[in-house]
Amino acid sequence: MPQVDPRRTIAELQELRALTADDDGAWRVAWTDTWLQSRRWLREKLDALGVETHDDAAGNLWSTLRGESDRELLIGGHMDSVPGGGWLDGSLNTLAGLESLRRIAEQYDGRPPVTVRLVDWADEEGARFGRSLLGSSAAGGTLVPDEERDRTDKDGVRLEDALRRCGVELDHAPQANAELERAAAYLELHIEQGPVLLDLDLPLGVVLGTFGVERHALAFRGQAAHSGSTPMDRRRDAFLAAARMSPEIYAITQRHGGVSTIGSCVTRPGIVTSVVAECDITLDQRHLGAEGLATLLREAREASERFAAEGDVEVAWSELWRIEPFTFHGELIELADEAIRETVGVSHRLPSGPLHDAAEMARAGVPTVMLFVQSLHGISHNKIEDTKLEHIEASVIALDRLAEKAMAWVGRQGG
Amino acid sequence: MPQVDPRRTIAELQELRALTADDDGAWRVAWTDTWLQSRRWLREKLDALGVETHDDAAGNLWSTLRGESDRELLIGGHMDSVPGGGWLDGSLNTLAGLESLRRIAEQYDGRPPVTVRLVDWADEEGARFGRSLLGSSAAGGTLVPDEERDRTDKDGVRLEDALRRCGVELDHAPQANAELERAAAYLELHIEQGPVLLDLDLPLGVVLGTFGVERHALAFRGQAAHSGSTPMDRRRDAFLAAARMSPEIYAITQRHGGVSTIGSCVTRPGIVTSVVAECDITLDQRHLGAEGLATLLREAREASERFAAEGDVEVAWSELWRIEPFTFHGELIELADEAIRETVGVSHRLPSGPLHDAAEMARAGVPTVMLFVQSLHGISHNKIEDTKLEHIEASVIALDRLAEKAMAWVGRQGG
Repeated sequence: MPQVDPRRTIAELQELRALTADDDGAWRVAWTDTWLQSRRWLREKLDALGVETHDDAAGNLWSTLRGESDRELLIGGHMDSVPGGGWLDGSLNTLAGLESLRRIAEQYDGRPPVTVRLVDWADEEGARFGRSLLGSSAAGGTLVPDEERDRTDKDGVRLEDALRRCGVELDHAPQANAELERAAAYLELHIEQGPVLLDLDLPLGVVLGTFGVERHALAFRGQAAHSGSTPMDRRRDAFLAAARMSPEIYAITQRHGGVSTIGSCVTRPGIVTSVVAECDITLDQRHLGAEGLATLLREAREASERFAAEGDVEVAWSELWRIEPFTFHGELIELADEAIRETVGVSHRLPSGPLHDAAEMARAGVPTVMLFVQSLHGISHNKIEDTKLEHIEASVIALDRLAEKAMAWVGRQGG
Repeated sequence: MPQVDPRRTIAELQELRALTADDDGAWRVAWTDTWLQSRRWLREKLDALGVETHDDAAGNLWSTLRGESDRELLIGGHMDSVPGGGWLDGSLNTLAGLESLRRIAEQYDGRPPVTVRLVDWADEEGARFGRSLLGSSAAGGTLVPDEERDRTDKDGVRLEDALRRCGVELDHAPQANAELERAAAYLELHIEQGPVLLDLDLPLGVVLGTFGVERHALAFRGQAAHSGSTPMDRRRDAFLAAARMSPEIYAITQRHGGVSTIGSCVTRPGIVTSVVAECDITLDQRHLGAEGLATLLREAREASERFAAEGDVEVAWSELWRIEPFTFHGELIELADEAIRETVGVSHRLPSGPLHDAAEMARAGVPTVMLFVQSLHGISHNKIEDTKLEHIEASVIALDRLAEKAMAWVGRQGG
């Protein structure tokens, strides 16, 4: 029986790193020359495999191994990285998928029972224009070109122009949705980017879904006053109200699950001799359940208003971004569990805090599941991102086992 | 009996405003052309009075009305303002002192029982170079030129060069100390710059002394981590530790008196998707008692260490600035109380949060007292700074009454 060769995947990841990274990390930022270079490199490997490959209207790269059934198993990843990123985030997904595609092509003599497609999504990270999941949301049908057109990068280049330079017309990007017409399942391997598997000393886990996110800016407004001449009971201290609220935000999260983060605090006038008049914080709340997420948000809002009132300051909320939770497919979760147990003996189920292209697939109604492989340091989006080589190898094998099970599952679902 | 004419003081304040302020406030920033202009304007008025006037080695302007005794009663103020400052902060002091000097010169036919001197201090505000009380500290003997030489303004101009342009050699500034040789008492009127008298609906108060100040930067150091993938119990959140500590800082101040202010909070990386790795805050603590101030500092330090340890983060303190409390002279405080009661019927004693040139005089061992006149809005360092005209008039009269009492007191102290 043909097998995947996980050491080839590691060799290819190293080859990619030599091509597109330096001492400061990987530079495969979407819509840049280095990203296009990584895509050409990938395409050479796909062409060598003899599969049909094309870019869709949103810049996603699709390779199709036609099967007996035209129902499709999709395996996805993304070659793009953040600036100074790690060697695994996104590219491991694509290259492990490529390795599985090779095994399937060989085992079934180029004609598997169902159609198998590898997709390399365009601009998962959103690192340059602040719009993540761009390619997969176009395919999933949620991208609205008019909402994205005027984004600019830090040099003032418009998103629309950067895409055009890579052969993508933003207005046509939603046509990528046609690619999902026969999609019957979607699989994605990713490094965890967190410490959960590391803490449990486990190589692999099944992802239950992606957290829903509520992201808000909270503006506390008090009154500037001289730090020396203003008695304590005469102050309307915007920072103090925000500070008093913050531990309560975390206590609410302890009660209801999920995660909450106050990532930024800005004070004005922000000088040593003045009571803070304006304190702006950002709050990022995530939960795997829609109801849990709504509870986190509601109780945080109540807490902010209570502490603002106690401190005689005002508080106003403004939404920065939100997305609902997407839970993955129950039967595919079971299959993923099996694949992991067969590979490393023990599995674990966990939610994903970060979003992934898989969320757009689940949102589009494609039965979806993800595998996580342990991250060393629990850190990604950084040149020190890493995973033990034996775990990378296990992840390539587990993804391939899952692909085989999923092909059979897709076949059984067929009308 | 000759009397002060407080309406002349108000007219002169208005004249000064027309000369040195615009719609955005006063621009008499020390060592600038507008400040020099205000000084020339003042000098014309002093010359008209016929007193001997000269600049000392630190740029302070001294006018001397020689008396029967060479023991000196000093009355002080400062013409310099912050950028966009109010019409009273500093200039009321000087012009009310001028008015009292006129009354004394007239009443005693140019030869009062003790010598009376008006001093207009140079650079009380420190608005341009960040060094307040420059002129009075030179006179008081605490200015160290080498510590100030390399200060620069926001345009990169060096303090030493800005002073030289105004005829002051920084290295010679400590020679101003000679001006205090015969100083027997120092008086200063100032707007309160706080809300205490306003809240009590009182026009005038006696200042007990200036708060001692402990000013520190606190650096909390945790670990950046992804807001989505990092479980709550795995975080080392620098902002959370600072936030938890902050209400405790205020509780400590409630217990021991004085005031404490967290004026600035800066977070890094300071993005919505990351746990805060670094949180820097500033802490400004003030107390009228040296022991009380030491207690505030010690308990704040303990609290910071306790909350840092609970949050598994580090905290480091670095001193920004400190000054001990200066209490004013008991007998002069009594005289000031009398002068206020004789003028408006009721007096009140309060500490000064902000520093004043009077603190440098008290530090130098000159028996010192200050009068505060009510600030509307409790606000200064702003174009909206204001005081009711009837209160300004009362303050000019009360300062003059105090000057008369202080002359007699200085006469009694004479050996």
